Amino acid sequence: MVQLLLIGGSASDVLALKVARELGIGVTKLQAKKFPDGEKYVRILDDVKGKDVVVIQSMYRTPDEHLFEYFLLVKALKDLGARKVIGVIPYFAYARQDRRFNPGEAISFQTVTRLIENVGTDELLTIDTHLHRVDDISEVFKIPAQNLSAVPPLTSYVKQNFKLDHPIVIAPDEEAEQWAKIASDILGSEYDVLEKIRLGPDKVEIKTRLLSVRDRDVVIVDDIISTGGTMVETVKILKHYGANKIIAVCSHPLLVGDSLARILDAGAEALIGSDTVPSPVSFVSVAPVIAQALKGML
Amino acid sequence: MVQLLLIGGSASDVLALKVARELGIGVTKLQAKKFPDGEKYVRILDDVKGKDVVVIQSMYRTPDEHLFEYFLLVKALKDLGARKVIGVIPYFAYARQDRRFNPGEAISFQTVTRLIENVGTDELLTIDTHLHRVDDISEVFKIPAQNLSAVPPLTSYVKQNFKLDHPIVIAPDEEAEQWAKIASDILGSEYDVLEKIRLGPDKVEIKTRLLSVRDRDVVIVDDIISTGGTMVETVKILKHYGANKIIAVCSHPLLVGDSLARILDAGAEALIGSDTVPSPVSFVSVAPVIAQALKGML
Amino acid sequence: MVQLLLIGGSASDVLALKVARELGIGVTKLQAKKFPDGEKYVRILDDVKGKDVVVIQSMYRTPDEHLFEYFLLVKALKDLGARKVIGVIPYFAYARQDRRFNPGEAISFQTVTRLIENVGTDELLTIDTHLHRVDDISEVFKIPAQNLSAVPPLTSYVKQNFKLDHPIVIAPDEEAEQWAKIASDILGSEYDVLEKIRLGPDKVEIKTRLLSVRDRDVVIVDDIISTGGTMVETVKILKHYGANKIIAVCSHPLLVGDSLARILDAGAEALIGSDTVPSPVSFVSVAPVIAQALKGML
Amino acid sequence: MVQLLLIGGSASDVLALKVARELGIGVTKLQAKKFPDGEKYVRILDDVKGKDVVVIQSMYRTPDEHLFEYFLLVKALKDLGARKVIGVIPYFAYARQDRRFNPGEAISFQTVTRLIENVGTDELLTIDTHLHRVDDISEVFKIPAQNLSAVPPLTSYVKQNFKLDHPIVIAPDEEAEQWAKIASDILGSEYDVLEKIRLGPDKVEIKTRLLSVRDRDVVIVDDIISTGGTMVETVKILKHYGANKIIAVCSHPLLVGDSLARILDAGAEALIGSDTVPSPVSFVSVAPVIAQALKGML
Repeated sequence: MVQLLLIGGSASDVLALKVARELGIGVTKLQAKKFPDGEKYVRILDDVKGKDVVVIQSMYRTPDEHLFEYFLLVKALKDLGARKVIGVIPYFAYARQDRRFNPGEAISFQTVTRLIENVGTDELLTIDTHLHRVDDISEVFKIPAQNLSAVPPLTSYVKQNFKLDHPIVIAPDEEAEQWAKIASDILGSEYDVLEKIRLGPDKVEIKTRLLSVRDRDVVIVDDIISTGGTMVETVKILKHYGANKIIAVCSHPLLVGDSLARILDAGAEALIGSDTVPSPVSFVSVAPVIAQALKGML
Repeated sequence: MVQLLLIGGSASDVLALKVARELGIGVTKLQAKKFPDGEKYVRILDDVKGKDVVVIQSMYRTPDEHLFEYFLLVKALKDLGARKVIGVIPYFAYARQDRRFNPGEAISFQTVTRLIENVGTDELLTIDTHLHRVDDISEVFKIPAQNLSAVPPLTSYVKQNFKLDHPIVIAPDEEAEQWAKIASDILGSEYDVLEKIRLGPDKVEIKTRLLSVRDRDVVIVDDIISTGGTMVETVKILKHYGANKIIAVCSHPLLVGDSLARILDAGAEALIGSDTVPSPVSFVSVAPVIAQALKGML
Repeated sequence: MVQLLLIGGSASDVLALKVARELGIGVTKLQAKKFPDGEKYVRILDDVKGKDVVVIQSMYRTPDEHLFEYFLLVKALKDLGARKVIGVIPYFAYARQDRRFNPGEAISFQTVTRLIENVGTDELLTIDTHLHRVDDISEVFKIPAQNLSAVPPLTSYVKQNFKLDHPIVIAPDEEAEQWAKIASDILGSEYDVLEKIRLGPDKVEIKTRLLSVRDRDVVIVDDIISTGGTMVETVKILKHYGANKIIAVCSHPLLVGDSLARILDAGAEALIGSDTVPSPVSFVSVAPVIAQALKGML
Repeated sequence: MVQLLLIGGSASDVLALKVARELGIGVTKLQAKKFPDGEKYVRILDDVKGKDVVVIQSMYRTPDEHLFEYFLLVKALKDLGARKVIGVIPYFAYARQDRRFNPGEAISFQTVTRLIENVGTDELLTIDTHLHRVDDISEVFKIPAQNLSAVPPLTSYVKQNFKLDHPIVIAPDEEAEQWAKIASDILGSEYDVLEKIRLGPDKVEIKTRLLSVRDRDVVIVDDIISTGGTMVETVKILKHYGANKIIAVCSHPLLVGDSLARILDAGAEALIGSDTVPSPVSFVSVAPVIAQALKGML
């Protein structure tokens, strides 16, 4: 049987250790540094010849640096004779810019996907990558690719740690409906989606499609919290409609600036995120989800 | 005749303007920004269809970010129908790591060169890229590539701005000999190279090959000043051997930390660099050198 | 009765919200921003005249920026007529440099303490500030000052979340003994301290004073984890001596670079820190400890 | 006679060397570093007891860090027995926020000035500090303070390096009139000031008070270029009114983002700044101005 090696890039060194623990293996030793002039350096300290190697590297905060380190790693692994390189990019940045919204724009998502392929990645795993115009991530990549989800473990964590009375799951918009559905299944609850209804040239009403949140505990589920605008707004609206306890959940807690404080201040009791982006709210690890998928690939 | 467009990336917006002035054309308008979550965005605001487009983008300080913006630009230009993309990378980072010095190392230079090609660059210009094991940059790239030099304009600047009496040009090491030669030709002077002579297990003597610097004005020429260690050492040694006035010259003044202060404090009267890396010592522009080469490509 | 207002600086906005929830009050609205040229701006949006105001601001990662924002806040509060300003600095940086180890050194700790006083702070609370040469923080400050501890809630968290069999608490060095003692009291366990024994000019043995860790679960307690060197070393030594499960605990998880990965990789099952420094291991909040102390001051 | 020592902080190490050369003395050796956890460290390597010591430290880009290092230096010098500490802060940040424009704002300028005094500064020199509501910097400080100017050497540089035909000096607004006046004296030319004339609720016309710029070479003089908005606008207006060659001059070239490219692209032939803020346009040193003032203080 082909032996699986596991490397954690600088952005996901801790997550790689957790995945390795789940798989009952060690991590491949890596020397990674940044020179004073800003150049990166990586050196793989184990023999990778003929092996299948997993490279885990997320793309948060300094996505270009993390991506470039990923390129260095994958290219080096291939040069050193690795049989297959499986890239795991837990938070895949640039997914928003997946088409040309205005003339002359770079389609950043496409640039990233092409480079990831060109550099030698054989298969790819991501977590809750926001796909806007396609149904499946395999339509975006020419290599085999799977989009896993952090929502099941996030929801289980909420279920275990918060006493929620007959809760309802809310998606802040239509694109988050897929995740609200998964969460409601796990909680055994209903879910609904917020919709914008245009009442006039300057007037918009935001409300749930069908259900009332009045006096109910609510779990809001979204994929990314960046500057937190959407989540703050959602919490405020639900509070306005009489929601009781509110727990906010997101896969990728980028948490730019004071977003966490603003979400809590708006009325959320807690924000629960995963460790695709290491953060003060990364209470839930995606390591089991990744480990499960890797087992399925052997 | 094919029309030439000129775009300056974030790292070289000023240099691009100067090249455009040399060529008597304007620069193509670019919208480039960084989102709060760290993602880059670029939009080219002119029509590039069927045109030959020059993209000038240096790789100093945050090389990975500048390189990724370069990828976004070139890929977008090709998608938008540009006929040919000529990349100008005035300071080309990662040239040092051009082979595997220790087992398992990534050969960063190769990763960068391959990605630059894969993303769609048709031809490449660089300035004084340090080539260690090849004679010509065209051996490194599969696309047509030229390595231009900032040493002629740097030397002319020194000649015009400093009264040097019967100067001698010094290369801090063998690899800088090529630039010392060029400079000495322009100054109409001699040149020499510093060599390390091992006198015992712990004893090294550094001295010029042939000529004495005693009571002579000296111009030191090197390609990169990063943390400044080599240049500080060179200035000290030449002072020790009795050099009179010392002018330090470099193509790429990265000037990490307090390197400039240390070089001046060691005894250099001035440090003169080019604008491949915008810095407080970038008194000389490589715009004429780039413009000349671009004219030759039309 | 004097009314207590609570302000969270940029470094501790979330912690301030948690303290406010503990006290059953709201936070005073603050507008804080950084201009493109690097200057900070703060504006207090509530009336503070005649009030006692608590300013919570930690000093992690960019201590000088956080400290300067603290200065802006306290000075403004005093100018605006606040009756009393209570500073809460959960992680107090610069405590290490509390004397002149080499001639000519700045005693940074003293500079910070004097400025905090001069700017108008009336009373001060800190958490586990490392005091090296004094017994009590009140000897360092001219204003009333208390040094609270995160170790009780940290230890309680460990007790509740990890099944430890007959554990022993270990202090990595003599200075951490105070915290090991507190933790062992809460766990109802023994504690011991690692000591360096010099066996020869180049040979040092590190071992526990009295007790064996063989086949025992161990809780290591320290105040700060910066680059993680001490904790990595401690975990390795305890593993070498046959320790079973190891849980590392620290008040201030600065976690520079890859320190967390290195600590886990060395053999720690988990690292548990507090939110004096928001981090991926800040599972424990010091909000109850701060709230309790503030109640005692009213 | 009291001996003068000169120390350059991290922000002004090169400028300090230049001032020292002007004075024919050396610089006092300083060890300054930043630990991985963000803390600063300084150590003064010469004996300062009984000496008058000049500390040169500018406040650009990361003003809080530079200011804190200044505090460390001055406090250490006083502790170490320096007789007098003369602070030289070439670019003095936070001068804009010199009063409370909106209720609750911190008056940052005042916080900085008070701390600079409290930490032990005996006398202060600054360069072109923007004073909005006072005539003289000595009204702001309780210690002796002088506000020097970079405009004379900047103007002399322009005079020597650009062939200007019957030029006119323009101040972008009333507050810059003082510098336009100085520059016009040196150039032996006229000067004028741009004024906003409100033509209606949404309509503003900007024009010179008295003189026409049509077909004339223009020198624009301002104190600070931060994001460059004012300067870009000024260049555009003057071009609109038919100005010929435009040279932009500023004391403090902060040059945030792409401001330099935008100023040149708007039509300025060149931007000339001083080295209070080291930048690619810092062609003029304020070292002679500072040296002259220091001589006057002995």
